[in-house]
Amino acid sequence: MRAEVIAVGSELLTPLRSDTNALYLTEKLLEAGVAVGARVTVADDAGLLESAFRGALLRADLVIATGGLGPTQDDLTREAAAAALRRGLRRDQGILEALRARFARFGRAMAPVNDKQADVIDGGVALPNPRGTAPGQWVEDGARVLILLPGPPSEMKPMFEEHVLPRVRERAGGTVLRTLVMKMASLSESDVEQRLAPLYTTFTNPRTTILGTPGQVELHLTAEGPSPEAALERIEALASGIRDLLPGRIYSEDGRELPDVVGELLRQRGLSLALAESCTGGLLAARLTDVPGASAFLDRAYVTYSNRAKTEVLGVPASLVASSGAVSEDVARAMAEGARRAAGTAIGVGITGIAGPDGGSPEKPVGLTFIAIDGAAGSRVRRCLFPGGRERARLQATQAALEMLRRGLLGVEPL
Amino acid sequence: MRAEVIAVGSELLTPLRSDTNALYLTEKLLEAGVAVGARVTVADDAGLLESAFRGALLRADLVIATGGLGPTQDDLTREAAAAALRRGLRRDQGILEALRARFARFGRAMAPVNDKQADVIDGGVALPNPRGTAPGQWVEDGARVLILLPGPPSEMKPMFEEHVLPRVRERAGGTVLRTLVMKMASLSESDVEQRLAPLYTTFTNPRTTILGTPGQVELHLTAEGPSPEAALERIEALASGIRDLLPGRIYSEDGRELPDVVGELLRQRGLSLALAESCTGGLLAARLTDVPGASAFLDRAYVTYSNRAKTEVLGVPASLVASSGAVSEDVARAMAEGARRAAGTAIGVGITGIAGPDGGSPEKPVGLTFIAIDGAAGSRVRRCLFPGGRERARLQATQAALEMLRRGLLGVEPL
Repeated sequence: MRAEVIAVGSELLTPLRSDTNALYLTEKLLEAGVAVGARVTVADDAGLLESAFRGALLRADLVIATGGLGPTQDDLTREAAAAALRRGLRRDQGILEALRARFARFGRAMAPVNDKQADVIDGGVALPNPRGTAPGQWVEDGARVLILLPGPPSEMKPMFEEHVLPRVRERAGGTVLRTLVMKMASLSESDVEQRLAPLYTTFTNPRTTILGTPGQVELHLTAEGPSPEAALERIEALASGIRDLLPGRIYSEDGRELPDVVGELLRQRGLSLALAESCTGGLLAARLTDVPGASAFLDRAYVTYSNRAKTEVLGVPASLVASSGAVSEDVARAMAEGARRAAGTAIGVGITGIAGPDGGSPEKPVGLTFIAIDGAAGSRVRRCLFPGGRERARLQATQAALEMLRRGLLGVEPL
Repeated sequence: MRAEVIAVGSELLTPLRSDTNALYLTEKLLEAGVAVGARVTVADDAGLLESAFRGALLRADLVIATGGLGPTQDDLTREAAAAALRRGLRRDQGILEALRARFARFGRAMAPVNDKQADVIDGGVALPNPRGTAPGQWVEDGARVLILLPGPPSEMKPMFEEHVLPRVRERAGGTVLRTLVMKMASLSESDVEQRLAPLYTTFTNPRTTILGTPGQVELHLTAEGPSPEAALERIEALASGIRDLLPGRIYSEDGRELPDVVGELLRQRGLSLALAESCTGGLLAARLTDVPGASAFLDRAYVTYSNRAKTEVLGVPASLVASSGAVSEDVARAMAEGARRAAGTAIGVGITGIAGPDGGSPEKPVGLTFIAIDGAAGSRVRRCLFPGGRERARLQATQAALEMLRRGLLGVEPL
């Protein structure tokens, strides 16, 4: 069963307005086992609206529209939906009287423009709206259902939960969806695709989506089944194969981000950390201290942005900076060692690189970064080249450093 | 001229994900005088996508899709758009070679799955993507235009502004919209509303929108007119009144964020900066070093997360931490002085606070933060209480510190 959500209203197509009704409906439908295939926001225009309804009814079993049911000339949802279904509208006398009674209750006479709110699509059922004027509508068309709901969230949400959701659940036949998110760092989307496509493409349930962000790839495995347990079992059938193909690479399957995972590992082992950052300029420290309780594992960080600071604060020999360059394997190692020594922590991390946009050269291009980890067992340095500009390079450098730390703490083979 | 925006990606139809690309495009098109009639978010499904493209091409003169241009099997936008136009795809050898060269530049072999990113719709023109792998496409079909853009905002936005917007403007002609964004720090949305509503509500062109984020308020003044000059003139009529009502408070009217503005002031005056951060954990350093060329004004930062680090690194007396507490006016001042002294810079900044969720008490609640600035003329400390939880408190603290720096550098009265 597949749904489509249509949000009606020109005001939703102006800047800085986002459509919260559609996000709410997407979430509630997914929980009920109904995937939303498309979400549409349409202006108050009869032709556009009719076309949007027609397209949605071609693609989906369940079409839910919000908004455009009021009394004004801009409120065209009823008419457009009826036209898309090639049906007429009938004025419901019961609704009309209830509308008049509502106005009377608030001591006002009902203006004639309000009458059209009592129009119901032929063959449709009105859904009561005790919190506002316009009722909703439930219209069946063969196996498909078209549902019209009012726009104000305070009216839409209770109407959806009381009158729509129970009927949708019944139709969905108890099918539920579940999603597993597997997160990996320091891998590219195409690397992951290359390794996993032969496996996951043999599955249609779960479906797999690959999502890449700087320094991170997420796999979203979504399965349906008659029960949550059955859906999770289907996910596991694929997930176990993925784990085998990417041994040690998946850092989280419970929603946690990499800084949380690394922080937890440090805490469990009682290890303290000191950072020496150059090109990342404090971003690694900021990401680690975003974890509540970070003081349990992070002692301090040195953002040594100038060469003088590298020498004065971390004891990186000025001669080494002069001979190898500030962006070099030697300086990264000396930064990690210097931070660990100065702070007296178990582990030191050093990051130095060329974030850009300036400062690159043919031998040392923008994006070149050295990351060093120093600990009781000695030090390791990784050389990376991060594409995509300053912001992405900095973010990727922090991901790579965290992944090196994670692998070191778990005793997994280094990258 | 009417546009429709299609955002492609199943992940956009899962809860808690909103489609920022579509909002951005809606705003930019509106500025160019092109109204967006509908906005569609579609799952990675060949049939759904083709139908969405077909519907959009029926309704709009300009159809812009984002996402689904990558190398994976989920990336179906090219194929679906071609099918909706009933056209084929040709593999562009020039693009293919550029892709391979890009991979080679980063020291990697290109996996064959990447090849399809070189496919261009028959009759279409590829739009270069120096920031990523997948190029965009501009495809004319009679009077209509179909445009495909990559999904990552860092690739999509520059491609849209460089290659799409100028051509769209040429096609649009006529009325234009212009927006002025006035930014303020360390003020609340309701403060700004309270002071400005009596003025801006008397204007209908420009319209005013107030947007609050942690530690920042933006005013968006949007006017329309027959020419850019006419629209800007209308904006200025309101903007000058706003400046009079908020003297010294507007830090930017040209899109720049607060770290850029403060960095520029430091650079102009040839002043160097050292930071000592506790609760913000490197976030202020990270925000300042996000500015290209930050090495011209930021010498170093000390993230002294433990009390031991405050004493060892910054020379904050252990007795002062014991008597006043780590989160106190005295310690903030000693941190700023210590950072300035250790680094030998013109200015030192110290931040100490309780970011939460734990660590608060009745006398020192979560959100309590002291920010100190130390310079040649002495030091100043500001006491703040930031609501809204850890992440918001940390962000607000960096905004408050930057605003203190800005006012100090400009000689504006302190807050």
